[in-house]
Amino acid sequence: MQLDSDVFGIIMAGGIGSRFWPVSRVSCPKQFLDLLGTGSTLIQDTYRRLSEVVPAENILVVTHQQYVGLVREQLPELEAANILAEPMGRNTAPCIALGTQYIAARNPNARIIATPADHLIVNERLFWRDLRTGLSVIGQQDAIVTLGIHPTRADTGYGYIQYLEDNPIETGCYRVKTFTEKPTLEVAKSFVSSGEFLWNSGLFLFRAPIMLQAIAEYLPEVHELFVGVASAIGTPGEAEAVQQAYVASKNVSIDIGVMEKASNVFVIRSTFGWSDLGTWASLHKQLDRDTNGNAVLGSARFYEAKGNMVRSAEGKLVVIKGLKNLIVVDMDDVLLICKRSEEQGIREVTTDLRTADETQRFL
Amino acid sequence: MQLDSDVFGIIMAGGIGSRFWPVSRVSCPKQFLDLLGTGSTLIQDTYRRLSEVVPAENILVVTHQQYVGLVREQLPELEAANILAEPMGRNTAPCIALGTQYIAARNPNARIIATPADHLIVNERLFWRDLRTGLSVIGQQDAIVTLGIHPTRADTGYGYIQYLEDNPIETGCYRVKTFTEKPTLEVAKSFVSSGEFLWNSGLFLFRAPIMLQAIAEYLPEVHELFVGVASAIGTPGEAEAVQQAYVASKNVSIDIGVMEKASNVFVIRSTFGWSDLGTWASLHKQLDRDTNGNAVLGSARFYEAKGNMVRSAEGKLVVIKGLKNLIVVDMDDVLLICKRSEEQGIREVTTDLRTADETQRFL
Repeated sequence: MQLDSDVFGIIMAGGIGSRFWPVSRVSCPKQFLDLLGTGSTLIQDTYRRLSEVVPAENILVVTHQQYVGLVREQLPELEAANILAEPMGRNTAPCIALGTQYIAARNPNARIIATPADHLIVNERLFWRDLRTGLSVIGQQDAIVTLGIHPTRADTGYGYIQYLEDNPIETGCYRVKTFTEKPTLEVAKSFVSSGEFLWNSGLFLFRAPIMLQAIAEYLPEVHELFVGVASAIGTPGEAEAVQQAYVASKNVSIDIGVMEKASNVFVIRSTFGWSDLGTWASLHKQLDRDTNGNAVLGSARFYEAKGNMVRSAEGKLVVIKGLKNLIVVDMDDVLLICKRSEEQGIREVTTDLRTADETQRFL
Repeated sequence: MQLDSDVFGIIMAGGIGSRFWPVSRVSCPKQFLDLLGTGSTLIQDTYRRLSEVVPAENILVVTHQQYVGLVREQLPELEAANILAEPMGRNTAPCIALGTQYIAARNPNARIIATPADHLIVNERLFWRDLRTGLSVIGQQDAIVTLGIHPTRADTGYGYIQYLEDNPIETGCYRVKTFTEKPTLEVAKSFVSSGEFLWNSGLFLFRAPIMLQAIAEYLPEVHELFVGVASAIGTPGEAEAVQQAYVASKNVSIDIGVMEKASNVFVIRSTFGWSDLGTWASLHKQLDRDTNGNAVLGSARFYEAKGNMVRSAEGKLVVIKGLKNLIVVDMDDVLLICKRSEEQGIREVTTDLRTADETQRFL
């Protein structure tokens, strides 16, 4: 099938994935890992999926400059010019501003799919169908479209999107009422039972001028910085312009900076099976589990053990006896053991390890 | 100091130490390990301690034939003739019968110290003092003397010895009333508070003819088998005689087979600081612990963690967060995690691993 040449993709691949430590390291974060043991890394899966609807030469990867080498290695088919290096992490709004400016310089009216690099999508046919719906909508309307995942449980690890069921602008594509941050369990339960809320997947579709206009309206300082970048593209001052924009830009997500404020936001109600693979606990939910609820990447033997999430190194025998709901991650140089319910504490650990010279090498 | 040439030692080193799996392996059990990270293995410590009161040429090691190489390696000063190889494990009664017959062949009236190879002794001066007391007693009396450890807690992992405080035959050396098996916690508490009970250290002193007479009386079939071995010493049929004796012998401990029944048993009340290092829990009690009760062999970092016993491989970072009272043993090829209170289950695990071809290599 001939792909539309005005369709572009932005793969947002700058995260450091500290919640998946010690598998995810500063030197090789989650998106560059074969986290599920499938034989391909998450960014490779993302690229392959996007290639179904975006011409290969139109896919851009935005990443931290220290990961440019990893991107080249894992996506050798990507042209060097399609890798945009961020000098520092500034969250998703600057990332989208940068990518959109570069794409607009090639095609001012481009239709763009912006996607995280490190998510799991189960049913790719449904995913592609929803992307095509989204592309159709943004081709006809001055809209920003997001994919909202039909929630299958009251998950407190996701942001939610409330939508208005009346008057969809296209089948399954609804006007957004509100974006909400990660809720408490009580609130999450009420969201799910109401039927009005979807999980925020962080995947957006928009035409370049519509997104630039929204950034200009809701994040004018950020917009100005990246207009400066746009005017330097192809000049000797290009790298310096990017550097200056990132140093000056505030750290803000596209959700908070733009989506929550914009009025022309629509959501496609998606059911393709999705996880942001944000934490070991979310991975535990995604993986096959034995009859006692134990999930394993690698191999492990359980004796009177329930609800554990184990990641083991190849060839190693892991034996868990009489214990429940642990996260056990065994790497060559690091072994982490904590409770599944308290894994937010992993950040606390990595923060602590950062303070001492002799432990920094484990990050 | 000149050592008495009629004093001999038997180091009982045939155990397979399965409760310390996965550190202790069938191929290299506990007594051959530097379990405490001191730079010497337990059998090396045992040999060195014994050398203080036993002439080096009089120390014999009885071990399973598969460990003869390990003994030679770790105790290169030991003469080959002083290593007695058991063709199979038959517990301590055949072991002592074998060692005593070999020693009696060299010196019919030898005074013998028989000791496990894998125990921890803290205050060696007190230990030697007690051995000398025991050697004095068995030199003057037709007695079997055992070292009984003054109990410092109601431990259910040890056998106990009840003694009669009246009429010690020498200062601190009392007549034994009963030997008891490992008690329940309630019983152990009453034992300790009564002041009449000591821990059974498994270390015995006796003259060769007295022990042979006791075995003849209480284990006549075993005695007969090892009389057969004695008559073959130095002949071409020696190895075959040992083989036959072990095949035919029952599996029985010297405690149950002889000590519990003999009337001439005395105990020295010892306070030198002792552990049989029988389990990870007992090791946890012996090691230095941080303010939260965590003990480590190797290195580990604890965050809101209490009472854990961790053994880590060199150079590896172990992080334990929010967990209590675990045993974590991380080897190159095996990682074991269980509760400290349920470590008897380790046997269950190793038994299970024995059933499958692909897991036997981890034993």
